Amino acid sequence: MTDPLFERVAILGIGLIGSSLARALRRENLARVIVAGDRGDVPARALALGIVDEATDDLGAAVTGADLVVLGAPVGATPAIMEAIAPHLAPGTILSDVGSVKKRVMDMITPVLPEGVILVPGHPVAGTEKSGPENGFAELFHGRWCILTPDADVPMGAVNKVARMWREAGMIIEIMEADHHDRVLAITSHLPHLIAYTIVGTAANLETQMSAEVIKFSAAGFRDFTRIAGSDPIMWRDVFLNNREAVLDILQRFTEDLTALQRAIRWGEGETLQALFTRTRAIRQAVVDARQA
Amino acid sequence: MTDPLFERVAILGIGLIGSSLARALRRENLARVIVAGDRGDVPARALALGIVDEATDDLGAAVTGADLVVLGAPVGATPAIMEAIAPHLAPGTILSDVGSVKKRVMDMITPVLPEGVILVPGHPVAGTEKSGPENGFAELFHGRWCILTPDADVPMGAVNKVARMWREAGMIIEIMEADHHDRVLAITSHLPHLIAYTIVGTAANLETQMSAEVIKFSAAGFRDFTRIAGSDPIMWRDVFLNNREAVLDILQRFTEDLTALQRAIRWGEGETLQALFTRTRAIRQAVVDARQA
Ligand SMILES: NC(=O)c1ccc[n+]([C@@H]2O[C@H](COP(=O)([O-])OP(=O)(O)OC[C@H]3O[C@@H](n4cnc5c(N)ncnc54)[C@H](OP(=O)(O)O)[C@@H]3O)[C@@H](O)[C@H]2O)c1
Ligand SMILES: NC(=O)c1ccc[n+]([C@@H]2O[C@H](COP(=O)([O-])OP(=O)(O)OC[C@H]3O[C@@H](n4cnc5c(N)ncnc54)[C@H](OP(=O)(O)O)[C@@H]3O)[C@@H](O)[C@H]2O)c1
Repeated sequence: MTDPLFERVAILGIGLIGSSLARALRRENLARVIVAGDRGDVPARALALGIVDEATDDLGAAVTGADLVVLGAPVGATPAIMEAIAPHLAPGTILSDVGSVKKRVMDMITPVLPEGVILVPGHPVAGTEKSGPENGFAELFHGRWCILTPDADVPMGAVNKVARMWREAGMIIEIMEADHHDRVLAITSHLPHLIAYTIVGTAANLETQMSAEVIKFSAAGFRDFTRIAGSDPIMWRDVFLNNREAVLDILQRFTEDLTALQRAIRWGEGETLQALFTRTRAIRQAVVDARQA
Repeated sequence: MTDPLFERVAILGIGLIGSSLARALRRENLARVIVAGDRGDVPARALALGIVDEATDDLGAAVTGADLVVLGAPVGATPAIMEAIAPHLAPGTILSDVGSVKKRVMDMITPVLPEGVILVPGHPVAGTEKSGPENGFAELFHGRWCILTPDADVPMGAVNKVARMWREAGMIIEIMEADHHDRVLAITSHLPHLIAYTIVGTAANLETQMSAEVIKFSAAGFRDFTRIAGSDPIMWRDVFLNNREAVLDILQRFTEDLTALQRAIRWGEGETLQALFTRTRAIRQAVVDARQA
């Protein structure tokens, strides 16, 4: 039997994504020891699920001796977690994360990164609207993209190790700049979530009677939106607070396009509507063809 | 064996919904003869699928002798179809439809409705983003709502027959006023589709390189939107043209709510974001509880 890829992996924040990673590490035998660091009753729950070898709310202890540390908490928790673990990170340790936003997370980590610790930021583009270690599963990552955004001076060996971990978990790896990641994800993930939250909020704001009927007759479109808008409030608050510019920029374009459609409806311009609706069908086909549907 | 509910049912427009109804009628033995009326090569395709007994592009012939006629084409086709069939509708015939908009459809039909023909408008709130007879299936209706919007002077017997048909197809029946239907559906179905079309359109308008990456990294949110925005362009053009007021009204509220969120992001108001995101989670739970998820 070959040696596992890592000796000791500490996952700090063992929720949906962290616990799915723990399960994949175990399944593929990628770590000799898996440690969960979290808070409240989460460490005990993770232990009870049998997905980690150790679990603690002492983050400093969790990372001690780890050759890979993965931040798995909402991105807003990054400064607090870094403060707790920085003194315990040994030179040569690889520090990674799974945050949905990359630039700001790197800006939070870099100034407090101890000498010799290697930062390889990552974003497994796979998720559900659920949270917590109970809802994770190793197959979550299967066939999905994992985007890594290391700085230019990061040694390739460390990037390759993190890439190999995600590849063994079933992901396809792409390396790009953090800024670019944040702009792409603002469109494919952050704006759709913002819109879904808004529309479900609009429905919640209707008169009680109407609101009840909207739930009752929840049709295909709205149903999908409520699922998206059932996503974790803290995680998403942190995403919007930390990818502000890219989200506001794409939101501006969206609003302009929506205004144009609104005008077409108001003036009964059927051809404009039909032309747009036909164009979007082609995009759907492209997404299906890219096997991301 | 008991007599079927109807002698001869003519379905005019045998696409996704019409063909699903044909399949359900057949499965439940609700019609002695099922006739499809459509255009182009669709009648031949419906016959080849074996889901109807007869099929023709002569709509007048299709409805001759029918005791139930169901309009299954996009709502914008209603005037043309009524012109073709009105002279052939016998007194006592029940005329129904499956249109996603109710008030305007009734306004189009009522003035040209022959003496003695009974209008029982309906909307099976069930669908997919696909179209055409090949994509229909009888189980589409299972557990979903069917909303009927007959005028106050319509005899109960006719309403009951149409209700019974959809009930046997697996649907739960609700009767309400057409106006009210249109306002509820504007929120639960029409606005979500409009938004999905817009956001996918916004992505299509990006620079080519960015647009390609959006398709490539299509994450959970965007993927759902592309599916919705892959819906039939003609059907949806007709929905927006014929439910204009209700759609513009809810769109106005949505835009205001979105502007408020935009401001919260710009000013970094995390609490506002988290509060809304928490509220929408409760709506998701209510939809799940209502078994419409
Ligand atoms: N969900 C997705 O679809 C998805 C997809 C890709 C990437 N991501 C990213 O993955 C990360 C985690 O998301 P998730 O969905 O896995 O969230 P989650 O299920 O809510 O898990 C987060 C975990 O981190 C813990 N935590 C929060 N603050 C902490 C702190 N200061 N110290 C220690 N532990 C702390 C949470 O504990 P409590 O329960 O006590 O708060 C929870 O156990 C986020 O950065 C997110 O952007 C999410
Ligand atoms: N799809 C949904 O999710 C859904 C759900 C509930 C209700 N509805 C309603 O159901 C109706 C049909 O929708 P669908 O999805 O079943 O559409 P579809 O699959 O596109 O089927 C519509 C059929 O009607 C035919 N048609 C169009 N104009 C016609 C005309 N003037 N004369 C004869 N046939 C004509 C079409 O032929 P061509 O192919 O030649 O155009 C097509 O075969 C619409 O009113 C829609 O609002 C749809």
